Amino acid sequence: MSLAETAREIRTENYSYAFSPYPEPIARVASGELLDIFTDDAFESRVQSVDDLPSKVLTDPYLNPQTGPIFVEGAEPGDTLCVEILEIAPERDFVASAHIPYFGGLTGTAATAMLNEPLPERVFIYPLRDGFVEMPHGVRIPYAPFLGTIGTAPLFEAISSLTPGPFGGNMDVADVCAGNVVRLPVRVEGAYFYTGDAHAAQGDGELCGVACEMTARVRLRLTVEKGTAAPWPRIVSPGQLMSVGSARPMEDAARIAYHDLLTWLEADYGWDRWEAYQLLTQAGRVRLGNMVDPQYSVVAKIDRELAEAARSGRGGDGVR
Amino acid sequence: MSLAETAREIRTENYSYAFSPYPEPIARVASGELLDIFTDDAFESRVQSVDDLPSKVLTDPYLNPQTGPIFVEGAEPGDTLCVEILEIAPERDFVASAHIPYFGGLTGTAATAMLNEPLPERVFIYPLRDGFVEMPHGVRIPYAPFLGTIGTAPLFEAISSLTPGPFGGNMDVADVCAGNVVRLPVRVEGAYFYTGDAHAAQGDGELCGVACEMTARVRLRLTVEKGTAAPWPRIVSPGQLMSVGSARPMEDAARIAYHDLLTWLEADYGWDRWEAYQLLTQAGRVRLGNMVDPQYSVVAKIDRELAEAARSGRGGDGVR
Amino acid sequence: MSLAETAREIRTENYSYAFSPYPEPIARVASGELLDIFTDDAFESRVQSVDDLPSKVLTDPYLNPQTGPIFVEGAEPGDTLCVEILEIAPERDFVASAHIPYFGGLTGTAATAMLNEPLPERVFIYPLRDGFVEMPHGVRIPYAPFLGTIGTAPLFEAISSLTPGPFGGNMDVADVCAGNVVRLPVRVEGAYFYTGDAHAAQGDGELCGVACEMTARVRLRLTVEKGTAAPWPRIVSPGQLMSVGSARPMEDAARIAYHDLLTWLEADYGWDRWEAYQLLTQAGRVRLGNMVDPQYSVVAKIDRELAEAARSGRGGDGVR
Amino acid sequence: MSLAETAREIRTENYSYAFSPYPEPIARVASGELLDIFTDDAFESRVQSVDDLPSKVLTDPYLNPQTGPIFVEGAEPGDTLCVEILEIAPERDFVASAHIPYFGGLTGTAATAMLNEPLPERVFIYPLRDGFVEMPHGVRIPYAPFLGTIGTAPLFEAISSLTPGPFGGNMDVADVCAGNVVRLPVRVEGAYFYTGDAHAAQGDGELCGVACEMTARVRLRLTVEKGTAAPWPRIVSPGQLMSVGSARPMEDAARIAYHDLLTWLEADYGWDRWEAYQLLTQAGRVRLGNMVDPQYSVVAKIDRELAEAARSGRGGDGVR
Repeated sequence: MSLAETAREIRTENYSYAFSPYPEPIARVASGELLDIFTDDAFESRVQSVDDLPSKVLTDPYLNPQTGPIFVEGAEPGDTLCVEILEIAPERDFVASAHIPYFGGLTGTAATAMLNEPLPERVFIYPLRDGFVEMPHGVRIPYAPFLGTIGTAPLFEAISSLTPGPFGGNMDVADVCAGNVVRLPVRVEGAYFYTGDAHAAQGDGELCGVACEMTARVRLRLTVEKGTAAPWPRIVSPGQLMSVGSARPMEDAARIAYHDLLTWLEADYGWDRWEAYQLLTQAGRVRLGNMVDPQYSVVAKIDRELAEAARSGRGGDGVR
Repeated sequence: MSLAETAREIRTENYSYAFSPYPEPIARVASGELLDIFTDDAFESRVQSVDDLPSKVLTDPYLNPQTGPIFVEGAEPGDTLCVEILEIAPERDFVASAHIPYFGGLTGTAATAMLNEPLPERVFIYPLRDGFVEMPHGVRIPYAPFLGTIGTAPLFEAISSLTPGPFGGNMDVADVCAGNVVRLPVRVEGAYFYTGDAHAAQGDGELCGVACEMTARVRLRLTVEKGTAAPWPRIVSPGQLMSVGSARPMEDAARIAYHDLLTWLEADYGWDRWEAYQLLTQAGRVRLGNMVDPQYSVVAKIDRELAEAARSGRGGDGVR
Repeated sequence: MSLAETAREIRTENYSYAFSPYPEPIARVASGELLDIFTDDAFESRVQSVDDLPSKVLTDPYLNPQTGPIFVEGAEPGDTLCVEILEIAPERDFVASAHIPYFGGLTGTAATAMLNEPLPERVFIYPLRDGFVEMPHGVRIPYAPFLGTIGTAPLFEAISSLTPGPFGGNMDVADVCAGNVVRLPVRVEGAYFYTGDAHAAQGDGELCGVACEMTARVRLRLTVEKGTAAPWPRIVSPGQLMSVGSARPMEDAARIAYHDLLTWLEADYGWDRWEAYQLLTQAGRVRLGNMVDPQYSVVAKIDRELAEAARSGRGGDGVR
Repeated sequence: MSLAETAREIRTENYSYAFSPYPEPIARVASGELLDIFTDDAFESRVQSVDDLPSKVLTDPYLNPQTGPIFVEGAEPGDTLCVEILEIAPERDFVASAHIPYFGGLTGTAATAMLNEPLPERVFIYPLRDGFVEMPHGVRIPYAPFLGTIGTAPLFEAISSLTPGPFGGNMDVADVCAGNVVRLPVRVEGAYFYTGDAHAAQGDGELCGVACEMTARVRLRLTVEKGTAAPWPRIVSPGQLMSVGSARPMEDAARIAYHDLLTWLEADYGWDRWEAYQLLTQAGRVRLGNMVDPQYSVVAKIDRELAEAARSGRGGDGVR
């Protein structure tokens, strides 16, 4: 890939609010084509100042706009859509966050229904400058952009873009970043790829429910790999293999992630099941994506170097 | 501290299996005294070969032996016991792990009760050599020792050493390692400190329920800090502040950890509540301790440099 | 209502497998019209003998067929669709149940992912005779039919008919029976009503995941009530008010159900919030719908006589 | 049993606040002896009027006083302690409830940690008159007393009397009432029986966390049954067999309860495992004990008539 290569631009004014097989595709692309996809922020740019309170400006149920569906030529059910993320560039010089009533990790919500009064509503606008998000008190958080939301269409469900699942979706996983490949299952012809909700930075868990929300130009390639669909999203970075589980309670998300990673080691890396269970016990890593969405997302990881050991034929038998 | 300083050795044959105010202390120490505490492994050294199946050798309910209680002079309810961990040295040249029926993160258990047959029972013995745990296939995992279990006595409860809680206990958090200070609440006179369950290495979550279990000599100091008890264990590393929450479901452990860390920022670091909520949202980090114990343990973290910004008086107001 | 009144029959061969606003309605009905809706069983009648193992006959992802969508004239977003269930009559003389691999309440599943082998697959066919389901050993369970699945379309999501939610869906709540009125929120024009999955009998929780599945003729009326949509399904029986919450973990389903019931008492029955909290604490009742679906369903109930007390003006002030 | 028989009275001023093997027994009784045990309320009678706010009168951590331990002659580890409850009589003419900050089912708590302000604190005092608890608005709830807390000592743990577990404890299960037999595991010599926390009435789940708290005289017999300890508490009523599971999340409590009931049917009632799974799926019943304690309690039930069918040899084979 050369960044000099001309990327095809994909923009829309006609956002989707679900991962769904039902809308008309906004574009049709070839497998492997270089794309520049423009994404709006989770508020659809309606929060631009501290006075743009969510309760005033987010009054309809259409939240977290997605650019998509993008029809990928040749993608058929059972395939994997490999999303090679090359660059996530900001389209403006600030990011927005907010404390939204009855939403977030440390408050009662619609699901964890409580009688307490909501937390105070508040908007935060932070400059994005010189590679940092600039918060009060001189706090500067490195710009580390990723796509909060990325996925394909389920077979016949249409799932809100606020929710993650086996199709990807609103995982809020910081490993969905430039340099990594996200592997998504294809369930419908053309895959129907969607993405959005770019974050300039985010802590593990996205505690209050709203990260450093930005508009973005996302350079990526969508490549079809025939016949290898996995049950859950996977991510390959230069150093690690990762599986993402999304569920409630959070332990089920962790179980899914580790279970998928283990079966991946078995199927593709030659591991015996019980030795793989040991490997993940002693060397697995976990990142919490979000603890705020309708399903929580947890990533389980293993170093590729360790994963590749089983079939490397290298010596050492771990026997005393 | 000088490592040349002579440490007082604390050993016992009379282990405890609970964090409890009821046993007689095995030692009384001065605040700040340099100690070498010897800990047995979680199996009380009954698993030494692959033939020592847990169902054969672990037939009584006394598991995870703790060295303690250690009475710390001057510690009174309401104080904090600061545990400065200086070194965790192995006492043998191998570690043990096992797949124990109806125990672990990817199997039905006594609590997540299921009708499925148990997973196959199996013991794993790995050499500990040249700074690595040596697993099969040439997999070498860096020796990164920590104390799986560390805590003080609750006020009047006696809690199994398999369980973590506000008193510390079986947290299986890799940040309980040399170089860090663990802050534990004192609930009874003398604090009644216990530790054990050293791990030579462990993945996040301790997936199968048994890490690289080792016997150890643990060099540490127990220092009493008057009148500062926090509701949950905290850890200070050179770079980070951490709070540990233990609960089920896992999201409650995460909520506790982040909530405690936030109130810590408010109380000791001058943060406004809602700005602290933002800081943790954008820059907090989470580590999963275990997903296998009677309560799961989750660590929430923030960089000390960021935590200290609020009262540093440095410029920058985060306003566009 | 007179049972002599002629009911309009609604049948389809073109089942839906989601609660969705996207399909063409299979019928358009007037508010209040008497209907006989024919429903297939959850297996679409593919399990007729003990040899019809689910792994053989349920090989596609299209499960739990729904009769619908039925367009109800006059229903608009914000309205309530009142479903008055008059009769649920069996269409055959047996019912079917099954133990399906990796599905059910006492087994690892796709969400509670585990490494254990699945439970043995098995089909159970029971005669339905003389008002009883006849199980082995002379066990006779009274025929107590209800609709496992009932709901309206979400605004823009399409949710699998295996899943319950705010729109109703696969709640598996035995109170969805003849004599009761189910109140469902209308989110789209025409409401898009669906039902199916009739059960001849079911224990609380639907433990193995499959009740006494039957084909049925369901006599009911769909009546539009303007402008009263509640956030979650509600049921009114001759003696009780009920709210249904669907979520994971199960405590969130219970929280939703009780929270909705409490706000109902406030809004429609004149209760002070804190007195209503007391009333439900001392006299509320809970039924577990299912503990097997992608979301669990819990019903919270209160006697109508008690609910109506606040505005009845009757004496007694509960003061000593 | 004749109510004319003289019961031995057991009172104490020296309450226990844990299920613990460590205190000195307050009484030693013979197996089968008729006892009148006097229990204080959960507030230790410190809440007598609406002005006795918990934050003022419950300032120490010693809550939910238990009458015990009672040493039962002949009880040894592995036995069952059968508690035959004959009568629960009020010792005063009112009951007390309260909304306690950060406690209850519809509020953030220490475990479900949130940043919301607490609910308003409030005390409710209701007359107990003519067989009813008299609440405001003329609401009269039938007097239906039961023991919120009942249990034996764990082997070496001491568990707060606010918590339920395998030993029984704070289950808040309304089936612990006169006419029923509670079967508790014996883990230490003498069983160390405790009870308290009588409730004059309670809704399923004990929603706000505080039922109609009363002082009581409890007439019961403690009978030792040799060698039959079950892993979880069981209850036998004239019509039903019940198992109680206590855990978080709530689905684990339900899994435990149904799993234990199923193994009971296998072991004592001659059921095949998979037919028992079917029986509970089609005819099991569930009651929610509490959704507020450190562990939630769920009861699974089956009619004794159905349970006894497997070995009754009655005809009918459930085959079409």
